[in-house]
Amino acid sequence: MIRLHGYYRSSAAFRVRAALALKGIAFELVPHHLRKGEQRDPGYMHLQPQGLVPALEIDGQVLIQSMAIIEYLDATRPEPPLLPPDEAGRARVRALAQLVCCDIHPVDNLRVLRRLRQDLGQDEAQVGAWYNHWIAEGFDALETLLADSPHTGRFCHGDTPGLADLCLVPQVVNSYNFKLDLTPYPTIRRVFDACLELPAFERALPQNQPDAEPPAG
Amino acid sequence: MIRLHGYYRSSAAFRVRAALALKGIAFELVPHHLRKGEQRDPGYMHLQPQGLVPALEIDGQVLIQSMAIIEYLDATRPEPPLLPPDEAGRARVRALAQLVCCDIHPVDNLRVLRRLRQDLGQDEAQVGAWYNHWIAEGFDALETLLADSPHTGRFCHGDTPGLADLCLVPQVVNSYNFKLDLTPYPTIRRVFDACLELPAFERALPQNQPDAEPPAG
Repeated sequence: MIRLHGYYRSSAAFRVRAALALKGIAFELVPHHLRKGEQRDPGYMHLQPQGLVPALEIDGQVLIQSMAIIEYLDATRPEPPLLPPDEAGRARVRALAQLVCCDIHPVDNLRVLRRLRQDLGQDEAQVGAWYNHWIAEGFDALETLLADSPHTGRFCHGDTPGLADLCLVPQVVNSYNFKLDLTPYPTIRRVFDACLELPAFERALPQNQPDAEPPAG
Repeated sequence: MIRLHGYYRSSAAFRVRAALALKGIAFELVPHHLRKGEQRDPGYMHLQPQGLVPALEIDGQVLIQSMAIIEYLDATRPEPPLLPPDEAGRARVRALAQLVCCDIHPVDNLRVLRRLRQDLGQDEAQVGAWYNHWIAEGFDALETLLADSPHTGRFCHGDTPGLADLCLVPQVVNSYNFKLDLTPYPTIRRVFDACLELPAFERALPQNQPDAEPPAG
């Protein structure tokens, strides 16, 4: 049985949930409550020494890091493909994905925000400004890359969803946290809407996970 | 002609410089002085809308994002390979690389440190504590992943250098900036030393670039 260690609010776990769903791969979900520190349990640290989600138990091994997991899924379960067949296209899709996964998401994730609040004494307004700054800076570039390319279709690359869309969708969902104005990003919004019409993305949404909690507000 | 847009102190450019050197690919270096904001010139923003380095002009296109670039190089110029042939091995190498490129480096890069200093009013001691915190947290996990795996050899994966080493080496070099104690990371140090014995890594070091400046201290 394939087991995905995740957390409903984790963007990186969201990417892998949606990838598994797009490929029609059945899996068991093992939730770890990040805000309660459950991912720091010694049993889980043995699987994932960073104490981060996701981790995927598959084919007799434990895989970590969302993009490495998705590349593995795509190589071992090729249908439907999440990367285009040509190397130029693959480089473009990976670059769009990494723009989100390397340049936006890490600077805004839970452990960084916690450090801003607890160690640097930042209040919620300052944390929100930090959070939205990095999304806006990344989305400015992502919007340009998508809007200016003939390779952009219904999705980030052509008319089938892939690795870049798997990264874009959770990042747009994150942008709701501090109510970032998405008006400047019509192409990002269009691709997001196209993804959410697919059951695979819809089912992978945070609020549709078994460990989801009611919104705080 | 292959042209690499970089900056001598950029870790992401360092990864690509070393990858090109390992593969014996000749390239022209186009430096952009990040601390002077030269990467924000409209001409460069047209190539790389994020205004970040590296960007690689190759095969009639512009590639961005270091890991996407290295994957492209490895697929189009396969010798010597930078990823192992088996999918489990590829997933392991990509995960080690992404641990550095997603979970350590982005939180410590120039634009984030600038924001800590300028917008959050942090002094140099606080910036140094921030910087070393994220490297130490990542290296704790990286050391465990390397030390506990039978796949670790002279390099991160086996006895030939690859994608994970290309990410590890610049991150170790970064750890010198605020003098992080590397004693707890014997495997990381051993792999780093093995890499630096190779001319490809030695030539790619920041201080060996044509745009290198003398140390401030």
